[in-house]
Amino acid sequence: MNPLRLRSIDHTGMVVASLDESITLYRDVLGLPLVHREMLTEQGVEAALLNIGDSHIELITPVRADSGVARFLAERGPGLHHIAYRVNDIDAALASLSAAGMRLIDEQPRTGIRGSRVAFLHPKAVGGVLTELVEPATHR
Amino acid sequence: MNPLRLRSIDHTGMVVASLDESITLYRDVLGLPLVHREMLTEQGVEAALLNIGDSHIELITPVRADSGVARFLAERGPGLHHIAYRVNDIDAALASLSAAGMRLIDEQPRTGIRGSRVAFLHPKAVGGVLTELVEPATHR
Repeated sequence: MNPLRLRSIDHTGMVVASLDESITLYRDVLGLPLVHREMLTEQGVEAALLNIGDSHIELITPVRADSGVARFLAERGPGLHHIAYRVNDIDAALASLSAAGMRLIDEQPRTGIRGSRVAFLHPKAVGGVLTELVEPATHR
Repeated sequence: MNPLRLRSIDHTGMVVASLDESITLYRDVLGLPLVHREMLTEQGVEAALLNIGDSHIELITPVRADSGVARFLAERGPGLHHIAYRVNDIDAALASLSAAGMRLIDEQPRTGIRGSRVAFLHPKAVGGVLTELVEPATHR
C-alpha cells in the first residue's frame, strides 16, 4: 500500500491578469461552471474554481505586489502555474515524501482554498513543476 | 446543450529534460502507473503517459532541436507546458469554438498520442495557457 496515493488531478492552477475576464473566458466561452471564489489573504491572491469533470481549473490573480504570484505574473506573464494532486491523507503523504527525500516547501499542511489542507513540493525536486498536494475539506 | 462540452482534464503536459529520469520520478517516487510511451516524429518529441485518476500526466522531451518543445526547454527550462481537455466530438468542439471567434492553432484535428485526435487553441486566446482538446481513440 502506497501511503502517498495521488488519487486524481485536483486542479491545475493558472495565473491570470484579471480574474473577472478569465472567469468570463472559462465560464462563458469554454463552458465550465464557476463554483467558488475566494480571497486568500495569506497568499496575497484572489482565486476562482471552475468545475471540469472531477477536477477544477483554479484561476489565481495577485492582490499584493510582494506575492509569489505577482512576481510570476511580472516575470513570465499569465499562464500555467501549478498542478495539484488530491490525496486522502495529506499528513501521511507528506511523511512518505519526506522519508523518500523529497524536497518540500511546506513540511506541514496549511489551509488552502475552500478549507482544504494543502502543501507544496519544491519545483526543483519535481522537474520544474510547482506541485501541490490537496486534501479537500470534504472527501468526494 | 453545449457542443463544446469539456468533459475532464485529459492530461497536463510537462516538458522534461530526460524522459527516463522523469518516468522514474513520477512512477517510482510519486507512484503513478506508466501506461504508454511513444515517439511522436511529426512533433519532434518523445512522450510518456502516467495514469492519475481518470487523467494522465504527459511527460514530453524533445528529440529534434527545431521543435517547439526544444525551444520551450531551452528558453524556460523544464516545467508545465500545456493542459488538455477531453471531448467526445472534437470536430463539433472546434466548430463551436471557431464560431465563438476563438483563435486556434489547429483548425482541423490531427493525430496525437495513442491514436487520439487532438487540436490546440492559441495560448494568446486562453490567458497564456497552451490548451489542447483531445478526443481519445477509445472513449472511456
